[in-house]
Parts: sequence; structure tokens; C-alpha cells
Amino acid sequence: METHRIFSDSPLSADHARLLVDGAAPHEILFPKKAVASVLAKPEPDPAFALADIAFGQPDLDSIRSSGKLKWLHISTAGFTRYDTPEFRALVAERGIVVTNSSSVYARACADHVFAFMLAQSRLLPEALASQAANGSEEWFRLRSNSVSLRGQHVVILGFGGIATELVKLLVPFEMKITAMRRQPRGDEGFPTVTTEELPAALATADHVINILPDNAASQHFINAERLAQMKPGVIFHNIGRGTTVDQDALLESLRSGHLGAAWLDVTEPEPLPADHPLRSVPNCHITPHIAGGHGDESGTLVRHFLTNLNLYLAGEPLRDRIM
Amino acid sequence: METHRIFSDSPLSADHARLLVDGAAPHEILFPKKAVASVLAKPEPDPAFALADIAFGQPDLDSIRSSGKLKWLHISTAGFTRYDTPEFRALVAERGIVVTNSSSVYARACADHVFAFMLAQSRLLPEALASQAANGSEEWFRLRSNSVSLRGQHVVILGFGGIATELVKLLVPFEMKITAMRRQPRGDEGFPTVTTEELPAALATADHVINILPDNAASQHFINAERLAQMKPGVIFHNIGRGTTVDQDALLESLRSGHLGAAWLDVTEPEPLPADHPLRSVPNCHITPHIAGGHGDESGTLVRHFLTNLNLYLAGEPLRDRIM
Repeated sequence: METHRIFSDSPLSADHARLLVDGAAPHEILFPKKAVASVLAKPEPDPAFALADIAFGQPDLDSIRSSGKLKWLHISTAGFTRYDTPEFRALVAERGIVVTNSSSVYARACADHVFAFMLAQSRLLPEALASQAANGSEEWFRLRSNSVSLRGQHVVILGFGGIATELVKLLVPFEMKITAMRRQPRGDEGFPTVTTEELPAALATADHVINILPDNAASQHFINAERLAQMKPGVIFHNIGRGTTVDQDALLESLRSGHLGAAWLDVTEPEPLPADHPLRSVPNCHITPHIAGGHGDESGTLVRHFLTNLNLYLAGEPLRDRIM
Repeated sequence: METHRIFSDSPLSADHARLLVDGAAPHEILFPKKAVASVLAKPEPDPAFALADIAFGQPDLDSIRSSGKLKWLHISTAGFTRYDTPEFRALVAERGIVVTNSSSVYARACADHVFAFMLAQSRLLPEALASQAANGSEEWFRLRSNSVSLRGQHVVILGFGGIATELVKLLVPFEMKITAMRRQPRGDEGFPTVTTEELPAALATADHVINILPDNAASQHFINAERLAQMKPGVIFHNIGRGTTVDQDALLESLRSGHLGAAWLDVTEPEPLPADHPLRSVPNCHITPHIAGGHGDESGTLVRHFLTNLNLYLAGEPLRDRIM
């Protein structure tokens, strides 16, 4: 049997590094000399990379270009902006390098996070948790009567992938009307999909708009003043994709004018937003610090997902979460 | 056809009062001279009550005792503490008065509210919404890794009724292990039920404990130091029943010691808790001001629920939400 050398720059605890080493044996794991602090940190080149035919993590582009051996790159995040360029796609196509990502690892947590946003909005939690209203008071009546059930509401999901697939499962008991925007609808989504051209009509009746768009050339400021104006007054806007897909000045203006009912953002541009950024103080804008994909067993799930794919790779079977 | 006289002291808008009058016609609605401010306010006797054979609202006990005509009381709340005494039960049994409540009207909103609590805890929303953590920082890793998915967790529900029935529907996608405590399990609940005697074993493995117990003589301080100690360390405790069912000193101590992971309370004793009450400042205690049952169309749903029951009553059929 051929022995593979797997370069891994994923930041792992000792236990998870052991899980990776043991799970991959007899294939060899090559760790970089300098540990990486975060999956979102900028990677540094490491000499061990040149020896590997498999990479698991966030290797830098120069190392991949220089490698004569790499056959499979498994990215340790769901987002892959760094690799999502025509040049990189041409490179991996030419070299026959398979590229997979870890979207399955984060999809459920991301779906939970945006669903928590939706329910927190439905039950007005930010306001209610800060309130000491007395039963029967004006504030109390307002809190009670402003709570809007998700049942039967219309949700528009921008970007149909692993997260959307998990999210729609959670929405089932609420019998929501679901519309997803997909660049190329396939017809097997299980609910109506629209293209970008058909989006305005969907936005006009949406109660919640969920933005899960990745960061790429086509998605820059996809949510702009025009699309915000197409949304129904009072709409709730959520972003768990990437901050760059939203024109934040237009978002701010739409919140200030009262056209948008509220915004729930896990991603912004930049991250974190400066403490004095106006989105931090505008009413009804709720921001979490890019943690939607996080969960208690993130790192272990990441390793197990890679090992599952490694076994498929060794067996010559199709890999999960293949993106190129 | 016999014409009924229906006393209604429910606080209704002009539109909903009209809905009630029109929907009940040709039967007559008698409104009290002094409008009631809130469904939770203490009612005052009104001379019109003596003319009614049906009552919809929160009539005072003396009026009911003095009435020679009352045949059906429809309570406009889910809770019915005021009426839940052996004396009152004996009175309505002796007089043949049917008693229904409005639990259906509030059940879905209450289920949504506690579910919002559970998801907000799972995604650490209170902490995350206040955080400006940078990607890769220690705080950021802590937020990500402390998020615990509801999937596969064990939830123990105290009090099995309309709210629990709605709640378990919402939990389906999360494949949680569900145990409900019911005074008299019937075996048709669709998941394991335990009696009070069997509760300690369930509490020992619960990740979330949901208290929906009503306020009555048997439920006073049901959650006390002993039962809190029976719960697994790190457990999340929720209360959307009544504040009196919890020994708040014991709850405070359990939160302070770190035994309880967090508490989410929609009800307290008294309401609202004083601004300087220690539960307001202890970490991980989250309080909303008794709004779980509130929703945008609360008052309209209340009237429609009564009218549905009125039609059943006129047809001689079993009433919904009958409690006595």
C-alpha cells in the first residue's frame, strides 16, 4: 500500500492531534513547525508542505503552487475565499488536485445560530431580557403584542448549500413559506427556488431574509440599497455568510429609516467592527462576533470529517464537500 | 332558542369587543362598568354578573358564589390559580358549572418562548451579542467552543399540558431525549413520562429542565434546594410556569455555586422582581417579564377561542381546554 504524507496546519488540541495521527495511520501526518493560531489566520509557508500529497487545513497559495506532489486539499473551514479565484481553479484543474472543504462540520451550528436569531427576534429577547416591566404596564403590553410568531411567515434564503439544507429542517414545525435563491436551481430542493433575476418578487413578501452568501467577486455588496428597498417594510435581515456581501452604509440607512425591522449579523466588514461603528449603536442591530459555526466539538468534528474523507479517498470513492 | 347572557370582563380593544359581540349574537354580551386593565389584574365584582349564565374572563370568586345562574366559566388565561382550590372545585361540582381555560391561546407562544431560551443558551446569545471579540482571540475561541448543540441532549419537562405538547413538536428536528413529569402518566404521551417519585433519576441526566408547573398548593417551591442538587452539574433551568413553584433563594445559591449552568426565567415571585434583587445580578440568570404567552394576535385569538367553545357549548358538545 502506498503511504501518504498529510500536511496539517489545522490548530488542534493535543487530543485532537492524536486523533488525527492515530486515525490516519499508517499514513503520516506532517505538522508545521509554527502552530497556526486560528483557522481564520493567514497561513505561513512551511518546508514540510513540499513533502505532502495531501493537505488538511489552510495552506498558503504559494506553497500549493510550488508543490509537485499535492493531489488533494481539504480546507478546514466552510468559507474558502482565499482559494476561490479563477487562477486557483485553473491551477487545481491543470494539476488534477481535488479540493474539498469542511462545510458539513459547521453547517448545523450555523443553522442553529441563525435559527436562534430568528426565534430571539420572534420573542423580542434583546428587549425582553433588558425589561423589568410590570404585568399590565404599557411596556408589558407592547412586548407581548409585538411578539410575532414565525408560523406561516415567509423566509427567503440567499445561497443554497449545506447550511440552508440544515436550516430548513429546523423550520419544519413552523410551517414557514421558504424561498431559496440559487444561482442554478436544480428543482430537487424541496421548495421554490429563484434566480437572482427573480429575487425582487420574493424579497417583496419576505418576513425574514437569511444571507448565507460566500465571499467572492459576484457577491460583493450583493445586499445593497436597491435590494434593501425591494424588501417588505419591517423585514428582518440576517447575515451568517460574509460581511463583504453587504453594503453596510445602505444597511445602516435602512435600519435608521425604519424600513428594516431589525438586522442580526454574525459577520461584518471588518471583523470585529470598530467599537464606535454606527451599526453598533443603531437600534435593532444585533451583532455576534463570527461565531455561528462554532460548537463544543468543533475541532473533533473537523478531524473526524477529514478522516471520513481520507477513507473515501483511499477507497477511490467520491469525497464529501467537494468544491473543485 | 334560549338566549344566553355572557358576562365578559376580558380587557379587549374596540375591534375585539366587536368581534365578540358579533360572533356571539344573538346571545348577549354583558361588559362590566369598570374595564379591567389586564388579564392578570385582580377583578372587581360587577352587578351585571348576576344576570349571566356564561362568564368569559376572570370573574371574582364572590360573584361566582353568589350567582344562581352561572353554568359555564371560560377563564381568559392559561393559569387559574385563583380558582384552583378544593373549595372552588367543590362549588362548581355541586352547581354543575363547567370550567374551561384559554391554555390553547397561549400554548404556542409559550412553547416558542422557552424554545427561544433554549436556543439562545445553546448559541450563548446574551454573551455573544455583548462581545466584540476578534477572530482568533481567546474570548472568540471560548464563545465558539462553549456553544453546545441541543442535538441529542436530554430535556426534562415538568408539567405536561398544552405548552409541553407544542414544545415537543419544535424539538423534533433536534432529536432530543425527552422526559416529562406528569402527575398521572397515561402512556399516550409519545415519550417517557415519570411521576414525582421517579423524577430524581431523570434530573440527574437532564441538560435542560423546563418548568411549566402551575401555581397550586402542591407546586409551592417544587424546585427547592434538594431537587436542584439532584440535577446534573451545568444543567440549564427554565421557568415559564409560575414563580411560586421555585425556591428563589435555593436557585440563587445554585447559580452562585456554579452547580446550575444558567437559569432562564419568564416568571418570578414577585413580578417584577425588585431592580436590586440578587437574581438580577447573578451571572447566567436571564429574566423576561412574564411575556411568554404574548403574541401579536393574542386578544383576537382569545376571543376566537371563546367563540369556538361557545359554538360547541350551544351544540352540546365537549368543550376545549376543560379543566373542571
